[in-house]
Amino acid sequence: MVELSAALAGQHNNILAKMVPSPIRVVDDKFSTIDGILKLTLGEPDFAAPEHIKQAIIRDVQADDSHYSSSQGVLALREAISDYLVDRFDTPRYDPATEVSVTVGAAEAISATFQALFNPGDELIVPTPTFPLYASVAQTLGIEVIGLNTAPDFIVTPAKLTAILTAHPNAKAILLNYPSNPTGVTYSETELKALVAILREHQLFVIADEIYAELVYDAKHTSMARLLPEQTVLISGVSKSHAMTGYRIGYVVGPAELMKQVGKAHQAMVATAPGPMMAGALEALRNGREDPEKMRVVYEERRDLVLAGLAEAGFTAAQPGGAFYIFAKIPDFLNTNDTEFVYDLADTVKLGVAPGSIFGAGGEGYIRISYAASTENLKSAITRLKHYVDLRK
Amino acid sequence: MVELSAALAGQHNNILAKMVPSPIRVVDDKFSTIDGILKLTLGEPDFAAPEHIKQAIIRDVQADDSHYSSSQGVLALREAISDYLVDRFDTPRYDPATEVSVTVGAAEAISATFQALFNPGDELIVPTPTFPLYASVAQTLGIEVIGLNTAPDFIVTPAKLTAILTAHPNAKAILLNYPSNPTGVTYSETELKALVAILREHQLFVIADEIYAELVYDAKHTSMARLLPEQTVLISGVSKSHAMTGYRIGYVVGPAELMKQVGKAHQAMVATAPGPMMAGALEALRNGREDPEKMRVVYEERRDLVLAGLAEAGFTAAQPGGAFYIFAKIPDFLNTNDTEFVYDLADTVKLGVAPGSIFGAGGEGYIRISYAASTENLKSAITRLKHYVDLRK
Repeated sequence: MVELSAALAGQHNNILAKMVPSPIRVVDDKFSTIDGILKLTLGEPDFAAPEHIKQAIIRDVQADDSHYSSSQGVLALREAISDYLVDRFDTPRYDPATEVSVTVGAAEAISATFQALFNPGDELIVPTPTFPLYASVAQTLGIEVIGLNTAPDFIVTPAKLTAILTAHPNAKAILLNYPSNPTGVTYSETELKALVAILREHQLFVIADEIYAELVYDAKHTSMARLLPEQTVLISGVSKSHAMTGYRIGYVVGPAELMKQVGKAHQAMVATAPGPMMAGALEALRNGREDPEKMRVVYEERRDLVLAGLAEAGFTAAQPGGAFYIFAKIPDFLNTNDTEFVYDLADTVKLGVAPGSIFGAGGEGYIRISYAASTENLKSAITRLKHYVDLRK
Repeated sequence: MVELSAALAGQHNNILAKMVPSPIRVVDDKFSTIDGILKLTLGEPDFAAPEHIKQAIIRDVQADDSHYSSSQGVLALREAISDYLVDRFDTPRYDPATEVSVTVGAAEAISATFQALFNPGDELIVPTPTFPLYASVAQTLGIEVIGLNTAPDFIVTPAKLTAILTAHPNAKAILLNYPSNPTGVTYSETELKALVAILREHQLFVIADEIYAELVYDAKHTSMARLLPEQTVLISGVSKSHAMTGYRIGYVVGPAELMKQVGKAHQAMVATAPGPMMAGALEALRNGREDPEKMRVVYEERRDLVLAGLAEAGFTAAQPGGAFYIFAKIPDFLNTNDTEFVYDLADTVKLGVAPGSIFGAGGEGYIRISYAASTENLKSAITRLKHYVDLRK
């Protein structure tokens, strides 16, 4: 232990000092102290990275790729990202030299994009319930977050979009994360086109976080980079699609003028992503286009299993069209204070799920269940939930 | 190519927009267009990462370490960092749980530390000539950089330190990077103790970037974490010591109260460092303690080779006690405008070195030579330099 000089106590960044630790981590840590708990709290694939991706990393390490890469990422990977987006989502072709940056996961993509686009005091519209990282990063940069409550359908409708843009005519950007963490809800092409018609009439950026684009069950994913490229900065990565969250490779694509700024923020922040991890991402996008489908099929089975179990237990949920989350409403015959509910659930039947209110307005009275867990564990979770309902009914 | 909506042109962060690309990269890119050029511009080990470190990464990938790690880094690595600092530099033992964060290279360590410590408008004293990244990161955060010109000895003396602290009584921190990039100059324990006696009387942080601590030639490295732990945030990493820059593993250690804030900045910025790269760093610190010495011996021979060659060509240099840079004064019989000099040198004898002025006040009239290059190339460089001097004398 090292003692801080008393005179220097509290002498740090004011904004960061006020920031609380990630609430989902706090809940998860509390659950971790309960013996025998089954946690469906965190959003992480339970699959291991595909073998051919692991082999590509191993070959890269063996080939002594231990030196600095190009700051925006090795060119071959930037080319693969451009090609992939065109082939898979019919986007325009982003210029690998000037319109693509490889980042340390989608997290750094968000940080670099926010830093590049916003000045302190700028307004960012964020539909809620939402992944808490956006607000954390916005807070550190002095960005004013305008929440847009999307309950009970958990999609931004044309009416809601028009209303918020009217109320906040100077908003600089809107963040769209779909399929959504925490709700699993996503948009059809028709729904998106209705939003795009409105967005096109306003001078604002769309920051589209489409990290779950490969995990879509009921229809094909439609990218904002296809519908509205002239206003869109697209954030994505291979973490969820190829079950390689720990390898930390994400990316940002957008018009060159913006990407020049994103690239500067990225360079100052981390210099460059690690070479062997980029070799893995390159393999994923060049030779692993079929990998997500294998996992998608399994996730879809799990989703349906959990949805059915929830229904039997008396829970309803908005249709989870993507990602690996179900956002379920706590039925009225139970304690609908979601924080109290999840702790009682954990204490009583040793099942850990995330309380909806930590994801912002609209999440109160809901729970988020991650089905990135084994089928066996999901079956056990349903049994536990039903047992809990029987006890409390 | 994707066209940005005309209405959104120029709508990005004001500070970043004004930031110029890294000047060393600009120079290096220009040199790269010259056929047959021999570049000693960039500061990167020419060694490959040691084989046992590569094998540790490969084993980690094979063991399916593709999931999120703990945000502050795997605990085993944080423990190894604490142990290493105690064993190698006789620092206090930093608590792995609360006083150590693993970052994406020293670059992210700098970003996270600056973000954690400073509010906009805070003053940071930076001795010059200096590595340009500090000023870039400071600029993006609104930190006011107070330059301290250290020419011609390129060390902060007690007199200079007292003068700048008197002139800037509210300075929040001083950055000390030693061994120094770009000068190669470092401090003896006696010199540091004289500075510490002054620093202890002032309420300011010391941000000690000791990334080159293992590359010290004439005496043992003394860490600020040993001499003044109560005011110090130590930034380091394994990139230079173990020739693994591209793996991007750095770290920050300091008193828990500060590290709590650094950890939040780090989590918001990148979530966590990549698992397999951390496995490599763990191997480096646990079983690769002898690796740096093998490289150090080679670098020292190269340093002496270049110093001798420079002297024969009429150049003097401050004693480069560490890192792999020599900061040499352009002799008066040549064009001492360093920018003009380096381009003429590159055009005439195809030798690329960095102009001193890009490293800030005190660097004018100097060149930085990186001797992280093969002995053969260094001999050729000296021959080219002598030839140039003969042509221009």
